[in-house]
Amino acid sequence: MSTTELQLSIGADLAVIRERKPLVHQITNYVVMNETANATLALGALPVMAHAREEVEEMASLAAALVLNIGTLSPPWVEAMVAAGRAANDAGTPVVLDPVGAGATRYRTETAGRLLDEVDVAVVRGNLAEIATLAGREAEIRGVESMGAGDAAGELAVAAARKLDTVVAVTGAIDHVSDGQQSLAVANGDPLMATITGSGCMSTAITGCFLAVRPEAPLAAAAEALVAFGAAGEDAARSAPGPGSFHAALYDALYALDPASLDERARTT
Amino acid sequence: MSTTELQLSIGADLAVIRERKPLVHQITNYVVMNETANATLALGALPVMAHAREEVEEMASLAAALVLNIGTLSPPWVEAMVAAGRAANDAGTPVVLDPVGAGATRYRTETAGRLLDEVDVAVVRGNLAEIATLAGREAEIRGVESMGAGDAAGELAVAAARKLDTVVAVTGAIDHVSDGQQSLAVANGDPLMATITGSGCMSTAITGCFLAVRPEAPLAAAAEALVAFGAAGEDAARSAPGPGSFHAALYDALYALDPASLDERARTT
Amino acid sequence: MSTTELQLSIGADLAVIRERKPLVHQITNYVVMNETANATLALGALPVMAHAREEVEEMASLAAALVLNIGTLSPPWVEAMVAAGRAANDAGTPVVLDPVGAGATRYRTETAGRLLDEVDVAVVRGNLAEIATLAGREAEIRGVESMGAGDAAGELAVAAARKLDTVVAVTGAIDHVSDGQQSLAVANGDPLMATITGSGCMSTAITGCFLAVRPEAPLAAAAEALVAFGAAGEDAARSAPGPGSFHAALYDALYALDPASLDERARTT
Repeated sequence: MSTTELQLSIGADLAVIRERKPLVHQITNYVVMNETANATLALGALPVMAHAREEVEEMASLAAALVLNIGTLSPPWVEAMVAAGRAANDAGTPVVLDPVGAGATRYRTETAGRLLDEVDVAVVRGNLAEIATLAGREAEIRGVESMGAGDAAGELAVAAARKLDTVVAVTGAIDHVSDGQQSLAVANGDPLMATITGSGCMSTAITGCFLAVRPEAPLAAAAEALVAFGAAGEDAARSAPGPGSFHAALYDALYALDPASLDERARTT
Repeated sequence: MSTTELQLSIGADLAVIRERKPLVHQITNYVVMNETANATLALGALPVMAHAREEVEEMASLAAALVLNIGTLSPPWVEAMVAAGRAANDAGTPVVLDPVGAGATRYRTETAGRLLDEVDVAVVRGNLAEIATLAGREAEIRGVESMGAGDAAGELAVAAARKLDTVVAVTGAIDHVSDGQQSLAVANGDPLMATITGSGCMSTAITGCFLAVRPEAPLAAAAEALVAFGAAGEDAARSAPGPGSFHAALYDALYALDPASLDERARTT
Repeated sequence: MSTTELQLSIGADLAVIRERKPLVHQITNYVVMNETANATLALGALPVMAHAREEVEEMASLAAALVLNIGTLSPPWVEAMVAAGRAANDAGTPVVLDPVGAGATRYRTETAGRLLDEVDVAVVRGNLAEIATLAGREAEIRGVESMGAGDAAGELAVAAARKLDTVVAVTGAIDHVSDGQQSLAVANGDPLMATITGSGCMSTAITGCFLAVRPEAPLAAAAEALVAFGAAGEDAARSAPGPGSFHAALYDALYALDPASLDERARTT
């Protein structure tokens, strides 16, 4: 991965989130709705969930960011995501996409592709398999995974960003963010994050929060979100014996994140 | 707000809830279903969630109270709420309405209005903006909010109760309950309650629990529910460093609420 | 209940779950989706939630077990459950059914019956009233309940297993598992489990996890799941003052379950 001149201002942007309390409209999956709403609130922004075709355009236009997540998709929800995405585009509201399960079923792969075709997406955040699917490199990556996901993930982020013409975040033990030109790796986080469902979805919601206050800088917003969420995960893990107590502690940690120390805690390269 | 002769029997009614374990049918939003079910259970009642047009009338007729919450509404759910509400009315089951997001989108405002038109609602519980919308005083309230929400909320509760011909609870730092004649302010609670999603929805569910055992006294039931929930919030906040641990502690506190001390803990005026 | 020669290998099977991380496809209710996903993950398997007619057959074919739960059913979900169940049958994927609320409304009773008719179900897990409904013995059981649920539940498990030609688990203070020939009672667990919503649904999900690695032995898988979940409940209860802290501790306990001591902790007869 190339070194980068990307300037992050994580603490300052978190302070802006807490002051402005941007409305983050989320059309997400049933499994994590409560969790992403609570993560959004704990960070300092305001979540709103709305998925009816009758109101998504109005809600997306009111919001400072729109989060689309296909984790439990069905046709009416997909139509709502497309409509909300277009309304967000018209209103200048930045859009984050979480292509949950792309590659697992044809329906998910096609829906993720359709959303990328019909909506101008500012950031896509997914895991290695999901992003590889979207970049058309799934077969290649399957073989590479065992050889060292680190390099593969970094290269994949760049390739996917170029192919999809958007900012891409490939998250895992190390997160990789790229806009196709500049790239960044984020090492913040803790293995306990993978023991609770929805930690990926939460990181997408938090990307939406940062994007709400940095709409002009999606690469920085995505990287800042992953540092902030990872740092909260590190704090939560300190006292948690397992996934249940970690889950509760994660909201406490997001709520307690100190803007003053956040930039020096960033483990980015 | 006028002083009142309203007689509360919070501890005694909580004891009846725990003894009778009334079934509280909830047609609510996806974000908080688990949370309102757990709050209902922790208090001592029995929650049941059912939203299919095929069964809502039967379920509402079996229940001791029906909770309608439009937080993630869509046409089939709205039809189910109307059908369940009418069946509840026919069966003499009291109905509580939570008009989540009324005022935010036309669809929510219209749906809340439709439910109030087509269903005989015993209690409406919402925040200042939602209730102001239903009372047709939204513009007025927006300006007033900055001048001191306390008085505005108390007056709004009275005006909305008169206009909607039902008991209205306007919740916030101080809650205001009115039936248009008698009014009460409830100061129980803790600021941490606003840091978790669904605390308003939980208070609506708990209103349903008290209404299940006090169907003839909706004003008292609404006030008692807000005292009980607020007291649990105070207990939970005592040891909680943030929203995640507060959230878990809130169920512990509801479960541990002591009927013997509840009436003297009421901070009502 | 007859004594049994049934051989359990709980610890060994848990170790296999953690090593293999089987994919457990769950079409379940909105209230507990996050909870059953987290219980599945904490135990060591991989949950996936997918309910769209467009993808359930593909997902069920990929999975090592399929969990069907009718807790918040509606027509499109029922169609998806039937389709997924048939695809699972074709692929040799074992199916667990949780007939939530059978007996409470006609729609639930009929849907549970339809799923049992149209899908080859390996294990049905429900409470006394639900299983009695499916066995056509509801009226009889209602009277018996007050006389001592223990014997009634054990006999009911046998009768239901014979009638439905499947393994049946009747859970309660004591769980009873039977395939109509062999039977087993499981006394593991803690009363706090009944204070959180979804503990029954979680036990069904965990049955799916054990079934994923013991598809040829559904009776053993069901019994092992109830021992493991009950033991986790015992561990979680040790330090929990109420349902909220118990809920968080339950995931910690599932995550920390020690395969080496699990078989000697089994309280089976």
